[in-house]
Amino acid sequence: MQIQGINYKTVWMEGNKVRMIDQPLLPHKFEIHECKDYKETAEAISTMVVRGAGAIGATAGYAMAQAFLADENIEEAARYIQNTRPTAQNLFYAVNKVLKAKNKEEAVKIAEQIANEDSEACKQIGINGEPIIKDNFKILTHCNAGWLGFVDWGSALSPIYQARRNNKNLFVYVDETRPRLQGARLTAWELKNENIPHALIADNAAGYYMRKGDVDMVIVGADRIAANGDVANKIGKYEKAVVAKENNIPFYIAAPTSTIDFDCVSGEDIPIEERDQEEVLFVQGADDKGQLQKVKISYSKAKNPAFDITPAKYITGIITEKGICKPEELIKWKNM
Amino acid sequence: MQIQGINYKTVWMEGNKVRMIDQPLLPHKFEIHECKDYKETAEAISTMVVRGAGAIGATAGYAMAQAFLADENIEEAARYIQNTRPTAQNLFYAVNKVLKAKNKEEAVKIAEQIANEDSEACKQIGINGEPIIKDNFKILTHCNAGWLGFVDWGSALSPIYQARRNNKNLFVYVDETRPRLQGARLTAWELKNENIPHALIADNAAGYYMRKGDVDMVIVGADRIAANGDVANKIGKYEKAVVAKENNIPFYIAAPTSTIDFDCVSGEDIPIEERDQEEVLFVQGADDKGQLQKVKISYSKAKNPAFDITPAKYITGIITEKGICKPEELIKWKNM
Repeated sequence: MQIQGINYKTVWMEGNKVRMIDQPLLPHKFEIHECKDYKETAEAISTMVVRGAGAIGATAGYAMAQAFLADENIEEAARYIQNTRPTAQNLFYAVNKVLKAKNKEEAVKIAEQIANEDSEACKQIGINGEPIIKDNFKILTHCNAGWLGFVDWGSALSPIYQARRNNKNLFVYVDETRPRLQGARLTAWELKNENIPHALIADNAAGYYMRKGDVDMVIVGADRIAANGDVANKIGKYEKAVVAKENNIPFYIAAPTSTIDFDCVSGEDIPIEERDQEEVLFVQGADDKGQLQKVKISYSKAKNPAFDITPAKYITGIITEKGICKPEELIKWKNM
Repeated sequence: MQIQGINYKTVWMEGNKVRMIDQPLLPHKFEIHECKDYKETAEAISTMVVRGAGAIGATAGYAMAQAFLADENIEEAARYIQNTRPTAQNLFYAVNKVLKAKNKEEAVKIAEQIANEDSEACKQIGINGEPIIKDNFKILTHCNAGWLGFVDWGSALSPIYQARRNNKNLFVYVDETRPRLQGARLTAWELKNENIPHALIADNAAGYYMRKGDVDMVIVGADRIAANGDVANKIGKYEKAVVAKENNIPFYIAAPTSTIDFDCVSGEDIPIEERDQEEVLFVQGADDKGQLQKVKISYSKAKNPAFDITPAKYITGIITEKGICKPEELIKWKNM
């Protein structure tokens, strides 16, 4: 996708170096973070210089390729990289895939393949979802399910990028997505760089625009999809889904099929992570000199559930690289 | 109500001085702002050192009393004070009431009466609403409808304060209430000072706790209530009301009857103010030295509707100083 008119991917390899967009600095600073060996790349994953399941997977694959190129102990490198973020499924997939390479060339090839597959799946989500977006649609999105969470294109934003390339007029309402403000920091920045008309709104304002008839559809991403079509995703998405249904607004999930967990019968089986209260009590932004600065907003205790479950009954359809289906039809992709 | 164990009102008069809690500094600093003449008091209203309809009315009354005490031109003082905040209805009521005083003593007496009436109405809202709150209830509130918006007690928080005095166990979920964070800054601070167990949450998390069965009731304030029971209030309240209904959670409005606008047939007649986008693009807090600091969170454009309408069908009851009624029964108080 574009940044100031130039095409970028979230992470890529140049020679034996891995380069990536430094995400914690966004939108205040745009810098490329360079990792000269696998340990630096692993460090970038653990410190969240790169985040998002698809992007983490690709980065881990590149880190493994770096280990091959530098004649490191490959098994040791694999363990090191896998220890960065214990819960990111794509990371293990990528490390294990590159681990099987027979030589340096093959390791680099497999790593590139992992990144390309992520990018292609996301592009296909966009192509599959694009026809749902009619000309002059106003779309609401929550959190960041854009290209920064993957290698390119993204999930929820991919149909929007495709629709824009097909010259459809669009307007996107971007929920700022407290507490971590991924909408304000990342989604708004992506859309601005792609010249897609949009407005940032407080999460509280989404219902106002839905009731007013100003939202034609909602598209959001997913962290995990249960076999029955229930979706776990960023906190607040449940509220948006309930209010969308109340106002007869289609509510779509967009995600690669790798997000579907067929072993998980329903959303009730997905544990909800309670994160550090500091994420609620502090807000990160930039001061008037553009320097990153955190401010404290309250001295009370806070609760900070990071995700919520949106039951399948609120979901109009799930857009994947294999096509669009209703939540209750998901099961058909189990053995595809 | 209490601040570090000492009883305070939001605004009061001492001799010829008007003193008030400096609200923009909260919760980072607690300071008393002193106004030695009516012009300084008027300035405190216009710069929002004091805010909230009830508190503004009382402050305006005190400013008029100061004008009397200093032998000022009373008509001129009245015009000056009325020019501070053109839309606050209580301000005009208070100014006109003190204007009719025949002498200094009467002016002070009327001003004190206005403040006391506000305080008494709010206390009565608490007494009337208290029985709805059962022991061990978990209550969700949004924005600040506490004592800082009035002279004392508040509206939505008043039944909570009464229940606490009656030794009921309570827990309050406080929506931070973006964009202006009145929940994080004011409501959490009030509850902390009254030793009421509570947790600050991102606005996005309210639905999560409602669906989880962790919220027994919702109590919020109102800016304006239409004759049919529709309520205009802080942005985001509509979403909470829809999600509360979806989860069969009682949703109560608490407000003095002066908030009811019988000339307004329904919520659709209430215009929604679109406020400055800077309120969304910046967040105010304190830096690590406790100094007030604003940080920028995004470089996109923002939209900032300040209020939304909650249709009567989502409202379980309206708690006023005259009693509790269903939204459709409001009309009975028209000529009471």
